[in-house]
Amino acid sequence: MEEEHSHGYSEEKQAYLRRLKRAEGQVRGIAKMIEDDKYCIDILTQMAAVNKALHAVSIGLLEDHIAHCVVNAAHESHETGNPDIVSDKVSEATAAISRLLRS
Amino acid sequence: MEEEHSHGYSEEKQAYLRRLKRAEGQVRGIAKMIEDDKYCIDILTQMAAVNKALHAVSIGLLEDHIAHCVVNAAHESHETGNPDIVSDKVSEATAAISRLLRS
Amino acid sequence: MEEEHSHGYSEEKQAYLRRLKRAEGQVRGIAKMIEDDKYCIDILTQMAAVNKALHAVSIGLLEDHIAHCVVNAAHESHETGNPDIVSDKVSEATAAISRLLRS
Amino acid sequence: MEEEHSHGYSEEKQAYLRRLKRAEGQVRGIAKMIEDDKYCIDILTQMAAVNKALHAVSIGLLEDHIAHCVVNAAHESHETGNPDIVSDKVSEATAAISRLLRS
Repeated sequence: MEEEHSHGYSEEKQAYLRRLKRAEGQVRGIAKMIEDDKYCIDILTQMAAVNKALHAVSIGLLEDHIAHCVVNAAHESHETGNPDIVSDKVSEATAAISRLLRS
Repeated sequence: MEEEHSHGYSEEKQAYLRRLKRAEGQVRGIAKMIEDDKYCIDILTQMAAVNKALHAVSIGLLEDHIAHCVVNAAHESHETGNPDIVSDKVSEATAAISRLLRS
Repeated sequence: MEEEHSHGYSEEKQAYLRRLKRAEGQVRGIAKMIEDDKYCIDILTQMAAVNKALHAVSIGLLEDHIAHCVVNAAHESHETGNPDIVSDKVSEATAAISRLLRS
Repeated sequence: MEEEHSHGYSEEKQAYLRRLKRAEGQVRGIAKMIEDDKYCIDILTQMAAVNKALHAVSIGLLEDHIAHCVVNAAHESHETGNPDIVSDKVSEATAAISRLLRS
């Protein structure tokens, strides 16, 4: 779908990987809490924490996407005179935001 | 905070653990996508999927919590004539719902 | 669907009505901002504010619902020996929470 | 903050105004339900409906914002050689998305 080999998030790759590693550990921690019969409300608090951590990653990826892919598409549209290049990217980004809002 | 050793979610423990295992795998899959420079929008789609999976677990835990801990507290309040027992549990559950809504 | 004429939220009715009146005003204010060609981001900030205000009302209604309808159903189940009365109420409340989380 | 007198959403202004009018009516309908002691769960269902309606407006405004303000800023950055013009707009849009996600 995409032939470019470098995306907006490339420079922050290590930071994203670290944050996802941590989120993965949080999910494993929640499983451990359930296994150990911990109190439901304490588990739900951890669920909210992992949701927050994942949302922060999503927001970061979105920002990188708009700053790079959408902005590059804007230049390409400008240069080629084809407005669809950028408007397709914008629709795609908006659909992704909408999925996040509803997830 | 809780001395009971059996919670509402106990009977469904294995199902929760399986779902969390799967969510953990999804988070790891997202890290792999970033490592492999996959397209941002495809990564965000996976992010929405893992959010949904985790929300389903949260909703299940909440249902079990209300069906067991809150309902038990209601009986205890009834028997002891102390309305605080159940109203404390209800406030606590509502606070957890509020944290989920905002996470 | 419900023959009872008094709900959990009855005592706080006036407070809810005031908060909804304010939210209605906020929605009208957003329409005015659009009419006056205000800056999109400022409009979105107001959108987030009205979402928050409405969520606070939803959370309040949910708390009242659990504290009254679910708790009453728990007593009824206890007295009649029919566990379905309360478990139906719990499922219904959980479905409402799930709709809010996804809305 | 913004001197332009035409924003991305201008062409769809009437559609937005109609949708906000409808959302305002929904909020008023919810107040009426509370006044008439309707069942809490039915009220919460209406709350989820108005949230959804407002989210759809927010998503539309965001799409217009990215398609116009961010894309224009991209051109301006390109022409002036000043990358801050677009990156400021992107950060601002992302902050708005983040507020919506958490609202």
